[in-house]
Amino acid sequence: MATKIPLYERFAAELQEQIEAGTFPEGSRIPALRESAEQHNLSLSTILQSYRLLETRGIIEARPQSGYYVKFRPRSRTLEADPSPAREDPTSVNIDDFSMQLFRDTQDPDFAKFGAASPDVGLLPMARLNRIVGELAREGAFDLDTSFYPEGTEALRVPIAQRAFGFGCSFGPDEVVITAGCTEALALALQATCDPGDLVAIESPTYFGILLILEALHLKALEIPTNPETGLSLEALEFALENHPVRAVIAMTNFSNPLGSCMPDANKHILVDLLARKDIPLIENDIYGELYFGERRPSVAKAYDATGNVLLCSSFSKDISPGYRLGWLAPGRWLEDVRKLKMAIGSGTSVLPQLTIARYLTSGGYDLHLRKIRRAYAQKVARMTRAIEEHFPEGTRIARPQGGYLLWVRLPAGIDSMVLYREAVKSRITIAPGSIFSPSHKHTDYVRLSAGAWSEKTEKDLARLGRIVHRLLAEGKEA
Amino acid sequence: MATKIPLYERFAAELQEQIEAGTFPEGSRIPALRESAEQHNLSLSTILQSYRLLETRGIIEARPQSGYYVKFRPRSRTLEADPSPAREDPTSVNIDDFSMQLFRDTQDPDFAKFGAASPDVGLLPMARLNRIVGELAREGAFDLDTSFYPEGTEALRVPIAQRAFGFGCSFGPDEVVITAGCTEALALALQATCDPGDLVAIESPTYFGILLILEALHLKALEIPTNPETGLSLEALEFALENHPVRAVIAMTNFSNPLGSCMPDANKHILVDLLARKDIPLIENDIYGELYFGERRPSVAKAYDATGNVLLCSSFSKDISPGYRLGWLAPGRWLEDVRKLKMAIGSGTSVLPQLTIARYLTSGGYDLHLRKIRRAYAQKVARMTRAIEEHFPEGTRIARPQGGYLLWVRLPAGIDSMVLYREAVKSRITIAPGSIFSPSHKHTDYVRLSAGAWSEKTEKDLARLGRIVHRLLAEGKEA
Repeated sequence: MATKIPLYERFAAELQEQIEAGTFPEGSRIPALRESAEQHNLSLSTILQSYRLLETRGIIEARPQSGYYVKFRPRSRTLEADPSPAREDPTSVNIDDFSMQLFRDTQDPDFAKFGAASPDVGLLPMARLNRIVGELAREGAFDLDTSFYPEGTEALRVPIAQRAFGFGCSFGPDEVVITAGCTEALALALQATCDPGDLVAIESPTYFGILLILEALHLKALEIPTNPETGLSLEALEFALENHPVRAVIAMTNFSNPLGSCMPDANKHILVDLLARKDIPLIENDIYGELYFGERRPSVAKAYDATGNVLLCSSFSKDISPGYRLGWLAPGRWLEDVRKLKMAIGSGTSVLPQLTIARYLTSGGYDLHLRKIRRAYAQKVARMTRAIEEHFPEGTRIARPQGGYLLWVRLPAGIDSMVLYREAVKSRITIAPGSIFSPSHKHTDYVRLSAGAWSEKTEKDLARLGRIVHRLLAEGKEA
Repeated sequence: MATKIPLYERFAAELQEQIEAGTFPEGSRIPALRESAEQHNLSLSTILQSYRLLETRGIIEARPQSGYYVKFRPRSRTLEADPSPAREDPTSVNIDDFSMQLFRDTQDPDFAKFGAASPDVGLLPMARLNRIVGELAREGAFDLDTSFYPEGTEALRVPIAQRAFGFGCSFGPDEVVITAGCTEALALALQATCDPGDLVAIESPTYFGILLILEALHLKALEIPTNPETGLSLEALEFALENHPVRAVIAMTNFSNPLGSCMPDANKHILVDLLARKDIPLIENDIYGELYFGERRPSVAKAYDATGNVLLCSSFSKDISPGYRLGWLAPGRWLEDVRKLKMAIGSGTSVLPQLTIARYLTSGGYDLHLRKIRRAYAQKVARMTRAIEEHFPEGTRIARPQGGYLLWVRLPAGIDSMVLYREAVKSRITIAPGSIFSPSHKHTDYVRLSAGAWSEKTEKDLARLGRIVHRLLAEGKEA
């Protein structure tokens, strides 16, 4: 005979199921007490008991004056810090043709593109942008000759400075330089602070675009170990700086590519102070900063910068449009150098994306849009994580990003992700193998999978990918 | 008693006056025989006699199957080749703040901007572009993510390859890389062919943007003398290549900035062969190539390139829109290197200007537009030349460009053009002083004046500039 389960426990079980299915992803707010009571026709005290039960189970947490939120939880399959340290000898950067090949595969429209860090096109505000473009064209606004403004138009620099003020920065519009995407911002920051042959400390793993830039600029890399939750290891960095003539440090403080790690604000403060003391510039890449899953936007290292030593780089490629190629750079005390370089190498940025995004930012709706896509990416990440847990073999470990849409996954039993890449391409699936995120080709048993490409349609592709991993594992055991 | 002047002589005098007033600028076609006969109610034989008279006077010339054209004539005030050779020792490039200051002055809308090489905004097809932008936005064409195509969209690369075929080139669309203006094309070409510290042979005087790029890329310059009509001295170049480890040569073959010179096609052929033999790449800047005043478009060195040794750079900044920041590069055998660099440093070019200009090029009207603006610039150049002759002191010498809209002017009695610059700025006029066109600050008694800024409105500004030159000359004589 079944024991009668109390009402609050039954509701708690239902809610927990929904949370585990990704309806309420980690970091998201669950409905308020009164709202749940009304929706489910239960008393307020029953709902309260249910929420408290889930709280004691560590599934949700109450936040004062705000409500109840789904907690970020370590689980059995969560990736832990790699015991093997990153390489700490300077490395020349030579990107082989593989990265270019990977890039070309991701252009094929028939592929399931888990290998590309592209945003979901369905989550871009294209209809709105198209209307704005039409408006501006009718007004003749695009007749402006932006080649006279290497730093970009004021119309765009003002809302950028305003938003940055909102997350703790205090630079003015005149201290911003508009760029062709975050890529150009990073390249300008490196050119302004380094000379050819210089050594740059990078995260390991790091976004492989950084490696392409370092190679193009004849710079050397020093790989610093990272933690999948907190990013760059400050201890390792400090040690490295004592032993190597590092000219600049480059880091993705929020939701790094590929780790998804978020450096705690306290660490950011320590990092800024450390580098100011040593007079080594910090190039901060905050391209995913707006795509947080938690309650509030994490800060940036730049917010703690009192000496102009931080060069903050970002873009609108992840949340507005990658095709517009529009980014920006707040270069601190390298402002004049960056302006001069921007003039030398590009004579300013195209008038069309500049004015379109300027109007988009100032005409209302951007914050609403961001709230929408943050929820959507949190759900995609939660669902893809669950699907990997389901379809990949035991021993797979998955990082738990707190923002962005990238999943850094360790394959079981040291499966070589380059082998997986080749097998996956045959099945019209791309992945990003771990070794491309390191100039010394470490991280061979990792892959980066993008939840930007996740949908109900691609779920079966992920299941197929899982079967390939199972097969490689079985073949490995046989051999 | 006045001698009776024959009818044909009177008409010839009238026509000559119109030619000298700039109604029919140098290189332009004058009305056909029949057309003139009808317009002026004279017999065909009278008109023929008039034209023959002007032909014998060296003012016009007959071209078979085409008609009569105003000849390019050396005049008393025409600039001749500089007897002093250009510097032939390698020079480190350090652009001082002056160039940046000049650049800022030219941003001031109240200034008469003879110092900027900007096209006349009234001669850009902005209304047409605005309509195309609106169309493409409505079609959703801008939703394309061009970050996947570092080389640019095929829609634009195809019409570029087609037009280049029309002036003698035989590269396909797949051998073109779209860039952010000609500036980025030049920077990519230099990065692909040179390493930091390498020596690049440049024209002297040369476009000062080249010097900014060389400085940014840590390259050294070797100045090669030029001729105001034929451009780069091949003899001097050959000599320099025997004596210095030149890694690349960079030249504006057609209507160079600032000289306005046009290298004869035979010289282009010799140049290409010379550099192929020595295995030194030629970076060719053809940004003004379409703005010819003569009967047909001059060829490019790239047209004689059998080995992929020429990297041809151009843009749409002079004839379509400078604010769109759209250029291109046909990098010959450096194609893969350039593609990789473009991906590393910019991740492709903005979708908006790419698709807009692609449609503009393919939807008819571009050739008509070019014919219109060629005539307009030929007139501006002729009128500004005449105004300089009128308002500037004796001893002023003016180059005779056969295309583009830039005038390279030697001031009399060694007046320092930097002094003239400072005086002119006080009168809200900008000029480009000659020394900024040389890394060793030669050409101090030259100025570059842009007929792009010439109009009936700015004629009085040029007269004021002339009075300043007169004053400086008088002060110089007193001192």
